[in-house]
Order: sequence, then structure tokens, then C-alpha cells
Amino acid sequence: MIRGKFITLEGGEGVGKSTNMAFIKDYLEQHNISVVVTREPGGTELAEKIRQLLLNNKSEAISEQAELLMMFAARAQHIKHVIEPALAQGKWVLCDRFTDATYAYQGGGRNMKISTIEWLEHLVQGPLKPDLTLLLDAPVEIGIERVRKRGAFDRFESEKISFFESVRRAYLLQAELYPERIKLIKANQPLADVQRAITDVIRTLLGLCALNCPTSFRHGGIK
Amino acid sequence: MIRGKFITLEGGEGVGKSTNMAFIKDYLEQHNISVVVTREPGGTELAEKIRQLLLNNKSEAISEQAELLMMFAARAQHIKHVIEPALAQGKWVLCDRFTDATYAYQGGGRNMKISTIEWLEHLVQGPLKPDLTLLLDAPVEIGIERVRKRGAFDRFESEKISFFESVRRAYLLQAELYPERIKLIKANQPLADVQRAITDVIRTLLGLCALNCPTSFRHGGIK
Repeated sequence: MIRGKFITLEGGEGVGKSTNMAFIKDYLEQHNISVVVTREPGGTELAEKIRQLLLNNKSEAISEQAELLMMFAARAQHIKHVIEPALAQGKWVLCDRFTDATYAYQGGGRNMKISTIEWLEHLVQGPLKPDLTLLLDAPVEIGIERVRKRGAFDRFESEKISFFESVRRAYLLQAELYPERIKLIKANQPLADVQRAITDVIRTLLGLCALNCPTSFRHGGIK
Repeated sequence: MIRGKFITLEGGEGVGKSTNMAFIKDYLEQHNISVVVTREPGGTELAEKIRQLLLNNKSEAISEQAELLMMFAARAQHIKHVIEPALAQGKWVLCDRFTDATYAYQGGGRNMKISTIEWLEHLVQGPLKPDLTLLLDAPVEIGIERVRKRGAFDRFESEKISFFESVRRAYLLQAELYPERIKLIKANQPLADVQRAITDVIRTLLGLCALNCPTSFRHGGIK
């Protein structure tokens, strides 16, 4: 069985992740790829319960360390029960946020040490990294305005503007550090243009895998 | 304000921790010590929710890494919101299980790397260690028999005998490694003898702290 590809979609608040998750799923399925769509924190029953504690906690302030460790606990569970089994079965995994979000939110936003995040990443992921990360980027005010229109805020969405500026800077730094893996997509342009940029990148991934992929891709599978 | 002392009570299943937690609390209070009684995993509202996920999860197998990280997430929260504030206020903290339990259950029982546990311990605790740890020890069969009589088992209590043998060995190794801090109490003897052994150790702790402790201890506070 040829191992599937692991695609993550990243970005701050209100950059259009949900819309584009659905778009990418459809695009891949049109190319006969079996896609598992999932998200972080979450993706398994236990990890979703951890997500609820992280996002909707109102009982007490969550310490930065507890938040970071809960994120990686949920991730360990998600990798073991969803991501790795799917990839091993040749499915592609499309995940709404992954470890780049930890560098952005807990590293940039909460100022946790990068070396701590790196250590936990190595512990939980071993050699696992996304094959492709699409980073949707827009000025913070634009994203926040979109979230505001949606209504209720979760614990992260209720942070101050300066927090989201730090998150954005940390995301952009990740993109600079890993230009081969992370592709920056400008999210403050018409949706059709965003999605053209996304398909350009994914076509490349489909093309790049031509030698390793099932016959359907090698022989005209790419539209 | 003179910092309080941090006492932990450790041991496998059915060694009599609950009974002796209450006994130690009473004993300390008789010596005019203000005691905060707490437990791990747990001790704060969020940490207790993590405890519920760890002990009563029936939805999916919890990966060993997720379990370990959830334990330390709950611990980070517990230290920040309960243990450190209490110690800083001069209160004594009496905790039903702490990090020695992680070495025993996740290290010994689950075979997680000791270096991983050490790294997480350092991350979450910094220099914080218990001033005294009482390790209640009994042959595994005796403890299991006691738990069996109590009725329903949680996720840890449902493990096999070999798991508990590994837990016990790991606990005893901790006691060998840290003889100054960890005092071994034989739990398979009459309760009066167990409690005499406990008070002998705690009297020493009270005595040892004579130079640092409030006046009430220095001048005849010890019965």
C-alpha cells in the first residue's frame, strides 16, 4: 500500500479555513483521492473532549503549560488513532490546523519556549510532518471582523488583537523557516483567487507524487 | 511568610491511601498546621475533568503518550492553582499521589521512557519536589484483593497483575533512588502499626523543620 499524503490547513481567526477545507476535500475527491477530513485539537472522541476543555473552559484560567500539554495529548491520540492509520491505508489526510498552530498560538501567542514545543513535537510525532501545509494569511483586523460577524467567541477568539498579531507573526516565521512544506496563500483577496492559489499548490503536490502514486494519478488523473 | 511543607502519599491499589490521608491530615491539624488536602490527577476543576477522561474513558484506547501528557497537564494546573499558592501562604499540602506515581504507573506500568518523564517533570515542576513522600507498600495480591472488595474498577484498576507488579517495582526503585525524601511504610501490617510508622516519619519532618517553622512548632508544638 502506498502511503497517503498529509495536508494541513493553517491560519489565524477568520481567514476562511472552513470554506477552503471543504473546497480542498472536493478537489482531491475529484482526483479520485480518498480523503480523511479532520481537525485539531480534536479528531477522536477523547481528543474532542480535550478540545472542549481547551476552548470552552470557563471554570479557571488554564495555565500555559497545561494548555500546551493538552494540545499535544490530543495530538498524540489523533495521530495514533486517525492520522497514521489513514496514511498507512493510502488515504490522504486533510487536517484543519496541526503543529504549526501550536508554534503560532502557544509559541507566538502565549510566548512558550520554542525548544519546549520542538521537544514535544519530536516526542509525539517522531518523523511525522505534513507533506504540505497551506497557510491562509490575512491582516488580523480582517479576520477578527469576520469572526465577530459569526457571533459567539471561544476562549482563543476572545484574546486581544496583540495576541493575534503575535500568532500571525509566528505563522509567517514558520512559513519562512519551512518554505518547501508551507505555502503561503493570501486570504484577503476574492475567494476565487484564493482557491486558484490553493489548487495551484495542490496540483504541484499531485504532480510531485506522480512516481509514487496509484496509476490513476500517473495516467491523466490530474485535470 | 514561611513556606509550607509538601507531603505526598504514594502506593499501588488497595494499600490504604484514603484511610491514611485522613489520618495524616488529622495528625497535622492536631499540631496546629493548616493543611490543604488534594489529589492527583485532579485537585482543580479542570484537572478533575482531565482525571475523569483518564480514569473513566470508555470510548477509545488512550495512547500511552496522551495519558502521560494529560497527567502532566493536570499537574501543571494543580501546581499553579493549588499547590504553589498554598505553600506560599504557609499552608502544608497533603497530596494523594504525585509525580512518583507517574514514574510508577506510566514509567513502570506503561514502560514510558524515564528520560521523557524526567523532562516533563522538570518542565512542569521546575525545582518543586515533595518535602516528604510516604510510600505505602504491600504485595500486589493483597492490594488487589482489597480493591476487588470495594466493587467497580476504574481504567487503571482494571489492569493485569503484571502491570501492578511493574508499578510496585518502579515505586520501590524510586524509594531506593531518593531515600531522603521517600519513606517506605509497610502497608500489610495492622493499621495501628502502619499509623505508628507514619507518625514516626512525620514527627521527624516536624522536628527537622524546627528552625524554619512558626513559633508554635518551635515551642512545644510537637506532642
